[in-house]
Amino acid sequence: MSTTKPAIGFVGLGAMGFGMATHLVRQGYPVYGFDLYAPSVQRFQAAGGIAVPSLRDSARDKQFYVCMVASAPQAQSVLFGEEGIVDVLPPNATLLLASTVPASYAQSVSAELQSRGRSDIFFIDCPVSGGAKRAADGTLSIMAGGSDEALQRGKFLLQTLSDSNKLYLVPGGVGAGSNMKMVHQVLAAIHILGASEAMGFAARLGLDATQVAEAIKSSDAWTWMHENRLQRMLEEDWNPGASALTIILKDVGIITASARQHQFPTPLSSTAEQIYLAALSQGFGSRDDSAMVRQYFPDPIQQVSASKSAVETEAALQLVLDLMRATNLCAAAEAIAFARFLNVDLDQFYQLVNDAAGASRIFTTQGLEMIEGRVGDKATQGAVRLRTVTEALEKAIQAGRDVTCPLHLGHAALSLLLLAQRAEGDQSSASVIRIFN
Amino acid sequence: MSTTKPAIGFVGLGAMGFGMATHLVRQGYPVYGFDLYAPSVQRFQAAGGIAVPSLRDSARDKQFYVCMVASAPQAQSVLFGEEGIVDVLPPNATLLLASTVPASYAQSVSAELQSRGRSDIFFIDCPVSGGAKRAADGTLSIMAGGSDEALQRGKFLLQTLSDSNKLYLVPGGVGAGSNMKMVHQVLAAIHILGASEAMGFAARLGLDATQVAEAIKSSDAWTWMHENRLQRMLEEDWNPGASALTIILKDVGIITASARQHQFPTPLSSTAEQIYLAALSQGFGSRDDSAMVRQYFPDPIQQVSASKSAVETEAALQLVLDLMRATNLCAAAEAIAFARFLNVDLDQFYQLVNDAAGASRIFTTQGLEMIEGRVGDKATQGAVRLRTVTEALEKAIQAGRDVTCPLHLGHAALSLLLLAQRAEGDQSSASVIRIFN
Repeated sequence: MSTTKPAIGFVGLGAMGFGMATHLVRQGYPVYGFDLYAPSVQRFQAAGGIAVPSLRDSARDKQFYVCMVASAPQAQSVLFGEEGIVDVLPPNATLLLASTVPASYAQSVSAELQSRGRSDIFFIDCPVSGGAKRAADGTLSIMAGGSDEALQRGKFLLQTLSDSNKLYLVPGGVGAGSNMKMVHQVLAAIHILGASEAMGFAARLGLDATQVAEAIKSSDAWTWMHENRLQRMLEEDWNPGASALTIILKDVGIITASARQHQFPTPLSSTAEQIYLAALSQGFGSRDDSAMVRQYFPDPIQQVSASKSAVETEAALQLVLDLMRATNLCAAAEAIAFARFLNVDLDQFYQLVNDAAGASRIFTTQGLEMIEGRVGDKATQGAVRLRTVTEALEKAIQAGRDVTCPLHLGHAALSLLLLAQRAEGDQSSASVIRIFN
Repeated sequence: MSTTKPAIGFVGLGAMGFGMATHLVRQGYPVYGFDLYAPSVQRFQAAGGIAVPSLRDSARDKQFYVCMVASAPQAQSVLFGEEGIVDVLPPNATLLLASTVPASYAQSVSAELQSRGRSDIFFIDCPVSGGAKRAADGTLSIMAGGSDEALQRGKFLLQTLSDSNKLYLVPGGVGAGSNMKMVHQVLAAIHILGASEAMGFAARLGLDATQVAEAIKSSDAWTWMHENRLQRMLEEDWNPGASALTIILKDVGIITASARQHQFPTPLSSTAEQIYLAALSQGFGSRDDSAMVRQYFPDPIQQVSASKSAVETEAALQLVLDLMRATNLCAAAEAIAFARFLNVDLDQFYQLVNDAAGASRIFTTQGLEMIEGRVGDKATQGAVRLRTVTEALEKAIQAGRDVTCPLHLGHAALSLLLLAQRAEGDQSSASVIRIFN
């Protein structure tokens, strides 16, 4: 058995792709990298990668190829454009599409490989998650769909790029990986805006940002996104963005476009998308998405000098937590309902979210009840009532109005909770998912 | 029978109040006017009014009194504050509260009159609508609730201030007038933002603003608000606002606060409120509400130079109309459902809206179907299907996304339509109201 590692072709040396490609280099693979942006290629070469002069040179004779460009149109051009790689990949090559794309696009790649007489190519639909640092560490979450043989052939690469317990081989073939990523991003897209909404609301209430953040972290209102974005939000370290607004905007666009295609409602994702679009118009596109806090509070939140009594502070803090609890509950319902609708494996989805950027304590505790269909059981011991969540949210929203703070997600959540309550009566709070039935 | 007209006390000489008070002066009434803002009092005096040095002087010995301040807190101070008028109004005086306030506040005034031993006062809850010009012309819409005797005593004043066919004596006593106004404002609040959303979307699509406006006017997407705000939107004549953002923001705040109190969902009103709040943060508070177009398009919409072919223009125009149709449909459903929930007389409501600022062609045509409960009848001849509206809206939203235009109301409407479709199946489009059942 040879110890020589196979050559890997790689296109797309942006923040994520650069990390992934250089990680492969460090693992001993000869990686032939290409990017339209020349400085990225030079940086890659400096990091031990092999620079090639053209896109096709990155693919010629490569049994394994990774495409990590930013979008479906870019992938289409890379794969099937005039100078595309599919024409030059060797027979029986394994092709990984790691970009975040609509499932329908991933499926169209399979179809086009077929129609171009390249059904010999083993194609894997494998979007990733986890950010640039985990890409470089080879500890990404990866959601991979494809034929059994394709997955078997590509598995060593997927394993090299992912954390040992964060590689999800998603049942359902090509498209299943992208669907899994998409429903995960429902949570990510809502929680990113939710982190800003909570911190902006807290600032409007005159609360100390750090104190609020600590309280959120140790509460059941915690989200992975809040914790992750917090430092950049506090420091207003937005330019260039570690996670640019345009990235989550692209992802949420995939969600809402796919939802429209299936005539499935995604009210909170849609709300978040519109606010992201509004921020884009205001020039926030290239900034870190934690800059969304500006949509809620005009000044740096760290400048708020808290002057409330301990009792007032505690009361105001509860309003912020209640806002997040209700938002996170509806986010969980929207994500799970959409996943269920798309026949995504819900047990795998639950496990994946809990270990990934879409995680929230509410998802962990209420999501299982939603998934297992135990919702609405009046006998459920100690379950939080829908009405309890709604009434707490209403108080938070009234307080938001009193300090003229828009609460986009809070209001979208309230509408959903009230519609659910009208339809279902006062069941356990997880029963909000029934509005999507 | 004396031809001498009775003296009228009047507080609140803002844009609306000044018009109303000077109209009364022109009709031959001695009007004793007061306002905290001295220049308004001077202007009132110059227009033939009688200036008084204090609030109480405007009320002493006045058998008829009109309160037209801006909000419930201001009314509370005028009526019951330390220098409030209730203590000095003569026995059996008739008191008109024409401010837009929550019904619950109007009812609290009745209760406080009682508890202060002034149940002799004939109190009328009578918010108005129609803008400053109609106030000055005495052609307002007025929605008046109160005891029969109070309404009888105040009727001559209500008639003097209103158009002959726009005085609505609303059954249900004190609070009924305010509720009627509030449910009307559901339509106003949504259509004001809707006008900007449509025109901003059209600009993003590269359409000529005037051409679009003409097309909207002659289509079933027409709203009174669109036609009324159009000129100011085109001219960007926003400062000082003919109808300042803060006014509709106050009104929509009454809607959403009351909805929360009743645990009733108002998703489109809530969406509009959040965007108004966002604009407030950006300094748009005192500007005309037609400036909301800035939330959708960064430049004056008249600067768009259209370059599409006739066929492309027609197709893009349809997207704008489809957006408005769906939004107006959901606005009608939200307003009628909330009115029904509050036991507002729906026949009167229907008549009132059609003659007032909340009017839309969709309300006129579909509203009756919603009110009469004929919705969802699959046999209804020629009724537009829910799915038809939804699919047209989806295309508009996709186009909006392609030109990175936020469509806040469009998305809120889509979520509602899709939820309704999931719950009800593909019925007539008016059946969207059932989601509020």
